[in-house]
Amino acid sequence: MADGAWEPGEALRGIAELDLERGHRRGYPEAVYCEGKTPEQVGVIAAAVGDRGVRTLFTRATSAHAKAVLAALPDAEYAATARLLAWPAEPPEPTGGTVLVLAAGTSDLPVAEEALLTARHLGRRAELVVDVGVAGLHRVLGRLEQLRAARAIIVAAGMDGALPSVVAGLVSAPVVAVPTSVGYGAAFEGLAPLLTMLNSCAPGVAVVNIDNGYGAGHMAAQIAAPATSP
Amino acid sequence: MADGAWEPGEALRGIAELDLERGHRRGYPEAVYCEGKTPEQVGVIAAAVGDRGVRTLFTRATSAHAKAVLAALPDAEYAATARLLAWPAEPPEPTGGTVLVLAAGTSDLPVAEEALLTARHLGRRAELVVDVGVAGLHRVLGRLEQLRAARAIIVAAGMDGALPSVVAGLVSAPVVAVPTSVGYGAAFEGLAPLLTMLNSCAPGVAVVNIDNGYGAGHMAAQIAAPATSP
Amino acid sequence: MADGAWEPGEALRGIAELDLERGHRRGYPEAVYCEGKTPEQVGVIAAAVGDRGVRTLFTRATSAHAKAVLAALPDAEYAATARLLAWPAEPPEPTGGTVLVLAAGTSDLPVAEEALLTARHLGRRAELVVDVGVAGLHRVLGRLEQLRAARAIIVAAGMDGALPSVVAGLVSAPVVAVPTSVGYGAAFEGLAPLLTMLNSCAPGVAVVNIDNGYGAGHMAAQIAAPATSP
Amino acid sequence: MADGAWEPGEALRGIAELDLERGHRRGYPEAVYCEGKTPEQVGVIAAAVGDRGVRTLFTRATSAHAKAVLAALPDAEYAATARLLAWPAEPPEPTGGTVLVLAAGTSDLPVAEEALLTARHLGRRAELVVDVGVAGLHRVLGRLEQLRAARAIIVAAGMDGALPSVVAGLVSAPVVAVPTSVGYGAAFEGLAPLLTMLNSCAPGVAVVNIDNGYGAGHMAAQIAAPATSP
Amino acid sequence: MADGAWEPGEALRGIAELDLERGHRRGYPEAVYCEGKTPEQVGVIAAAVGDRGVRTLFTRATSAHAKAVLAALPDAEYAATARLLAWPAEPPEPTGGTVLVLAAGTSDLPVAEEALLTARHLGRRAELVVDVGVAGLHRVLGRLEQLRAARAIIVAAGMDGALPSVVAGLVSAPVVAVPTSVGYGAAFEGLAPLLTMLNSCAPGVAVVNIDNGYGAGHMAAQIAAPATSP
Amino acid sequence: MADGAWEPGEALRGIAELDLERGHRRGYPEAVYCEGKTPEQVGVIAAAVGDRGVRTLFTRATSAHAKAVLAALPDAEYAATARLLAWPAEPPEPTGGTVLVLAAGTSDLPVAEEALLTARHLGRRAELVVDVGVAGLHRVLGRLEQLRAARAIIVAAGMDGALPSVVAGLVSAPVVAVPTSVGYGAAFEGLAPLLTMLNSCAPGVAVVNIDNGYGAGHMAAQIAAPATSP
Amino acid sequence: MADGAWEPGEALRGIAELDLERGHRRGYPEAVYCEGKTPEQVGVIAAAVGDRGVRTLFTRATSAHAKAVLAALPDAEYAATARLLAWPAEPPEPTGGTVLVLAAGTSDLPVAEEALLTARHLGRRAELVVDVGVAGLHRVLGRLEQLRAARAIIVAAGMDGALPSVVAGLVSAPVVAVPTSVGYGAAFEGLAPLLTMLNSCAPGVAVVNIDNGYGAGHMAAQIAAPATSP
Amino acid sequence: MADGAWEPGEALRGIAELDLERGHRRGYPEAVYCEGKTPEQVGVIAAAVGDRGVRTLFTRATSAHAKAVLAALPDAEYAATARLLAWPAEPPEPTGGTVLVLAAGTSDLPVAEEALLTARHLGRRAELVVDVGVAGLHRVLGRLEQLRAARAIIVAAGMDGALPSVVAGLVSAPVVAVPTSVGYGAAFEGLAPLLTMLNSCAPGVAVVNIDNGYGAGHMAAQIAAPATSP
Repeated sequence: MADGAWEPGEALRGIAELDLERGHRRGYPEAVYCEGKTPEQVGVIAAAVGDRGVRTLFTRATSAHAKAVLAALPDAEYAATARLLAWPAEPPEPTGGTVLVLAAGTSDLPVAEEALLTARHLGRRAELVVDVGVAGLHRVLGRLEQLRAARAIIVAAGMDGALPSVVAGLVSAPVVAVPTSVGYGAAFEGLAPLLTMLNSCAPGVAVVNIDNGYGAGHMAAQIAAPATSP
Repeated sequence: MADGAWEPGEALRGIAELDLERGHRRGYPEAVYCEGKTPEQVGVIAAAVGDRGVRTLFTRATSAHAKAVLAALPDAEYAATARLLAWPAEPPEPTGGTVLVLAAGTSDLPVAEEALLTARHLGRRAELVVDVGVAGLHRVLGRLEQLRAARAIIVAAGMDGALPSVVAGLVSAPVVAVPTSVGYGAAFEGLAPLLTMLNSCAPGVAVVNIDNGYGAGHMAAQIAAPATSP
Repeated sequence: MADGAWEPGEALRGIAELDLERGHRRGYPEAVYCEGKTPEQVGVIAAAVGDRGVRTLFTRATSAHAKAVLAALPDAEYAATARLLAWPAEPPEPTGGTVLVLAAGTSDLPVAEEALLTARHLGRRAELVVDVGVAGLHRVLGRLEQLRAARAIIVAAGMDGALPSVVAGLVSAPVVAVPTSVGYGAAFEGLAPLLTMLNSCAPGVAVVNIDNGYGAGHMAAQIAAPATSP
Repeated sequence: MADGAWEPGEALRGIAELDLERGHRRGYPEAVYCEGKTPEQVGVIAAAVGDRGVRTLFTRATSAHAKAVLAALPDAEYAATARLLAWPAEPPEPTGGTVLVLAAGTSDLPVAEEALLTARHLGRRAELVVDVGVAGLHRVLGRLEQLRAARAIIVAAGMDGALPSVVAGLVSAPVVAVPTSVGYGAAFEGLAPLLTMLNSCAPGVAVVNIDNGYGAGHMAAQIAAPATSP
Repeated sequence: MADGAWEPGEALRGIAELDLERGHRRGYPEAVYCEGKTPEQVGVIAAAVGDRGVRTLFTRATSAHAKAVLAALPDAEYAATARLLAWPAEPPEPTGGTVLVLAAGTSDLPVAEEALLTARHLGRRAELVVDVGVAGLHRVLGRLEQLRAARAIIVAAGMDGALPSVVAGLVSAPVVAVPTSVGYGAAFEGLAPLLTMLNSCAPGVAVVNIDNGYGAGHMAAQIAAPATSP
Repeated sequence: MADGAWEPGEALRGIAELDLERGHRRGYPEAVYCEGKTPEQVGVIAAAVGDRGVRTLFTRATSAHAKAVLAALPDAEYAATARLLAWPAEPPEPTGGTVLVLAAGTSDLPVAEEALLTARHLGRRAELVVDVGVAGLHRVLGRLEQLRAARAIIVAAGMDGALPSVVAGLVSAPVVAVPTSVGYGAAFEGLAPLLTMLNSCAPGVAVVNIDNGYGAGHMAAQIAAPATSP
Repeated sequence: MADGAWEPGEALRGIAELDLERGHRRGYPEAVYCEGKTPEQVGVIAAAVGDRGVRTLFTRATSAHAKAVLAALPDAEYAATARLLAWPAEPPEPTGGTVLVLAAGTSDLPVAEEALLTARHLGRRAELVVDVGVAGLHRVLGRLEQLRAARAIIVAAGMDGALPSVVAGLVSAPVVAVPTSVGYGAAFEGLAPLLTMLNSCAPGVAVVNIDNGYGAGHMAAQIAAPATSP
Repeated sequence: MADGAWEPGEALRGIAELDLERGHRRGYPEAVYCEGKTPEQVGVIAAAVGDRGVRTLFTRATSAHAKAVLAALPDAEYAATARLLAWPAEPPEPTGGTVLVLAAGTSDLPVAEEALLTARHLGRRAELVVDVGVAGLHRVLGRLEQLRAARAIIVAAGMDGALPSVVAGLVSAPVVAVPTSVGYGAAFEGLAPLLTMLNSCAPGVAVVNIDNGYGAGHMAAQIAAPATSP
């Protein structure tokens, strides 16, 4: 369990103990959570990432974080809506099943896109459908074929968070539900859809943290992994 | 605003100041909330009700409460599931529009029946449909005609509380949503469906207290009142 | 359940799947929730609305949203206090009963006005009364006649949220209570009046989300709809 | 600050360090909180109380506690509804202003009676009015003279807890509000009326713990103390 | 209960229904809660106040509110720390007992000063003592004489909110506890000291809303009112 | 979407609208949630199940529920610890990958067993490992090989709920975390581990409701389904 | 990290994976948390403990658990108030500094005794002082010498939980605060004192779970360990 | 208990009653909590500190606070990340055992550094290790020797807060856990790791307030104090 022969430079020491064997151990890219880190700290980490050549995602990155990463890794790509940086910019060739991402409303797009891009960078084919809230059932019912073709479905929804229950009742694939902080008042920053989803009356729904598009995309990519993967 | 000529007997004094003009003022039966009152106290109130001849509902009544009321008002009727006593037993002749009560699951029946009976005793025609949760959409979609014929719809649901959003998206009548304490864990005794319903992405939903079938039935009966009523 | 012959332009695709049959299905205007959408997204939706000619409300709209909508729909009208855009600006000819909107205090005005305008754009006659909090009972008692003339009453109140209980005890029309985030400390952004209203000791009160003037106005308009409407 | 010459017997040691100078220091009876103590422990304390002759209240006492106290202090009195034991049974001669106790509903009686008896045993004249909830305003408006004659008013209310705001708007005496756990669902065991009362839109309201009739009675008795008392 | 002969000008209509008889009814100054009102609205109200000549406090006033009030009532006075405007600037001649205000820490000063000024403008002699937190008990114990001379004591404290329990154990006057939002993390914006104070193990403590210095000062002034006042 | 030719007997009408095509639609057994239903109601449903011959699980069943089911379906099997009834008793022949169930402590066994049996009755090979909490890391580290052989891992944990984070860091299979109500005090009936799991610092964790072993087992079985299943 | 040569008997397998090297690794007795385990399971574990001869505490044990343990380990001792079983009954010879346990009230005794016994069985000299709540400061001030002689102080308090702040301001030893569920209403089963203690205005206070006397005793014993221990 | 001969200047009066004997009484530096104080107030206090020559820490200080302190005490030192000012800048010569500070992630650094510096200024040798989260167990397992050499361990962690449980299972020194507000959504500003830590399944963990690095450092320094200190 040693960190191997590579030696962190002085700049890295005291900032982060990079877990650079994780990609090897887990089979997926490394991720750097940017919130709460200064752009300088993220820049130092990005340089170390480049030195070692490990596929890496930088999540919840502001434009200041993005600037620091792109200075160190000019061939990275920043998806501003999703607040996600990917290096290298190009996802791997897709394998396994398809991941379908549903956003209940347009306001849920940032979270849905973070999930979409994460699933792609973990090596899955991934599609996005927007604005299929339960107040207009024909919108989701009109997508039945697409829903039933997916190996894993991600549903991002705020407010009443009712969409995962409806979707899970229509398919046999597992549903990864991600509550969003879309809403106001008694939505309590995403608490309402979080509770709705945890109490889904349809089995086959599991939930990640509020606004955690990265976590939803990661989980779905693991579910839809090819059978030969562990 | 005086209490009128009627004088409470000694037994009533210190227990309740009966609001016997309320039926007159509001146009609906009086209600006695039994929880937290002793059977003896409820019995004394029931006797006073009988003396004055005011149509009255006794809500959240245990069988001990029921026994005390029936001793004083033998022609009252106790609906044990709904925990409701009505005196007189017979509801008035129905007027106004129809109230439709939906129960998402069988476990929501006690609340749904309390709503149903309340609406009837306030003078409405009222119907009940059970087990139409969103995990099997065809069940609610198979009721479209009945849904669209109602002047007011009550939806009782626990767990994810998603049914009111779906129903409100299908009809133009107002929906009175009543969360139930059905569920466990993160349902937090009805908090989860309560929040879901308050955050409904479909307009036309208003919410009453958890397990408050009486309040839902009352509100729906007022909504469906004949136009000549105020 | 197809979306019909109309084809969304490229700009709309991936932003919103407009539910343009909803007006037809529900009998009321379409609504676009602006919070969490960029002004650009809202502008694209507004253009699509104009193309199809569907009566639409844009809720929780900032001035930036308003600017984008007015660029696409110059004959829309922006009510800044209510944060509401209506297109067309003129409400339909009123039918049905009267909706009365009460604001407990001046600070509740934005929510009360959103409710008022919504009820009017759904086709109801609607009136507003401000500053009738329970700490000075004569203010509400002085309005008894106006209160009893309404077919539906909306009460917007923050802080202790006690007004709906008092009002519901005085009238036989249903009361739609909308808690506001007015207050501080243990008001917990509207949680206190929300709980007060859910626990109203007077029947005939149902509650919508904190600060949800749109929802209250919509519900009240449905309640006060003419009897021939479903 | 020594405990004086009196020596606790062996039985008391390790159970309680009686604060027997508190009556002297504070000018009011000693109180023993029984909940969480065994009847045996309470009995030992009661015996010590008798030895020293200090006026004492035993609060939140079950009948088992009562039995143990009455064995040691046969001339004590147990008010079962209020769950209060007083020794000696007779309150002191009243001085100072009048304390008025209002109970919003019959179910609030146990808390209201605990407040009433506490105020009396602290030496005040105290009166009780039951069932004056805000859903029937004429009941409280019919008591204006009695309300305005009191030096301190206690209001016990559960559910929406709206009564203190209404009362405080009608009088110039301070109001001690005591939320009760009466109610269900979103009353959350008294949290709802607690928040209502803390957010009263009428000044002159201060709040004690849920169901804390003893604390309300004590506070009101201090407020209504004769001017010569500190 | 008519609003009397005075007619609000056009500017006031639709903003506030001034309760100008409240001073008469309650015996204390009128108060205008500024939060959530625009400076323009507050300015219109201030002008109406000046027309009628009613002693008035403007609470939770920003400097913008203050500017608007001072334009209409140049002889008002703005206490910026307390965010309080008083008109007229001079409090009435003090009567009744003394109100003592304790602030546990320097950060609690704004709330403590709001309480102090409120008590003075309601006609009480009031004193302020700062920085007497329980972590250094000698500070409060060194004030025993001053504590015992007061007719009512206000304690403002954030964080652990432990000071009221300690103070109430030392005096026989009632303690009005006002939790402040001072603190961080698990202080949850004042929730922690609020709960502490509600659960005080010493009787004689009642609590007002978080940061509600105005309410605390008002309550204490009522407690310390001369005996001839109602 | 009609309910087909089968006609519910009189007994079933008004209790449940059985969703008997769900097995067909979703590919998994039907489930009947017993909590909140009377044994009589569950017995009627069991009889209908037997008539149609649909593989069914009865969850959260008390021994009274079990007795009613076994009367109607004598060849069902009741697992008392898991509170689960399965009919038929024998699970289908396993296909797809292996589901591994970890219980952090012995007290988590009921939930873990419910998950284990559910996964088996949905057609998966499933194994159980007990007492591998993080306070003794060698216990989980000693199972690395078994952990890495699973296609889906369920982790049931109460108290600090830390185990899923540790496990997810060691494997590349997705982890379904199920918080249990094991613990006391600030565990708040499972809220603590629920929040821990939602905030897992390791990606690849999704969460179901507190104590929802059935939901966890269902989700894991779907994840580990053979690739040819949708 | 193997479990060594010892082989669990058949009975133990599937119940618990005993961490019997923990005493060796951590230097303290093993603990078995009994809540949520059946007496049978605890009995099997007790037998395994006896076979290996590892000093063990059984916490939160009911009398049924106690009976099962005593059947397997007749020389164990059950402290019913503390719900603690110790085997062997005799604590080790004390080393290190003294642990002082303070209980704010008599009702906090069960938690305080659990802490006391735990500290003793971990090898410390430990003393108990009861009923030193802050409402009577002279009680704690009269113990200054004893307080200042301790190497670690445990404070168990419910209700306002104010005692740790006062104690920590008087000593230089660290204070381990344990909130208890003593209290009612807004004590919220120990939440109030928990928050109070976390927000202590005196540094030198750290907190364990509500009612966790075992955890407090363990922490204090580690703090007061002799310097030569790690 | 007088404050001695030193007389606060006019500037200090009404701002703070400096507890300048606390260092003497408690044996540790004085601390000034800056949040909620104006820079001017903090500057006045700093001048008083300089006059008396008492070693002092200024916590949660913004750069504006820092500027005011440095104007009065030019030889103080400001650690911007930790938001801590120390005067004098140089910590005392270390005595007692070593304090080890672990930060689960880079984002926890500000809290960890506040703890580190506090421990040093209280006279301990203190070391910092960053980025040892449980998702990569080899990082913490690679530090076993360093962990076991410490007399007290501080663990700062946000999100799932799982690190203290893992660490406490590996060492016999006490662990002071400090939850951080790092995370989002259901981390609820640090509530999630706070609950995790309070429910640690490993004994030997006690918790301080969210983000309270100062409190953690203080507690750990007291634990690691030399045996001759009380």
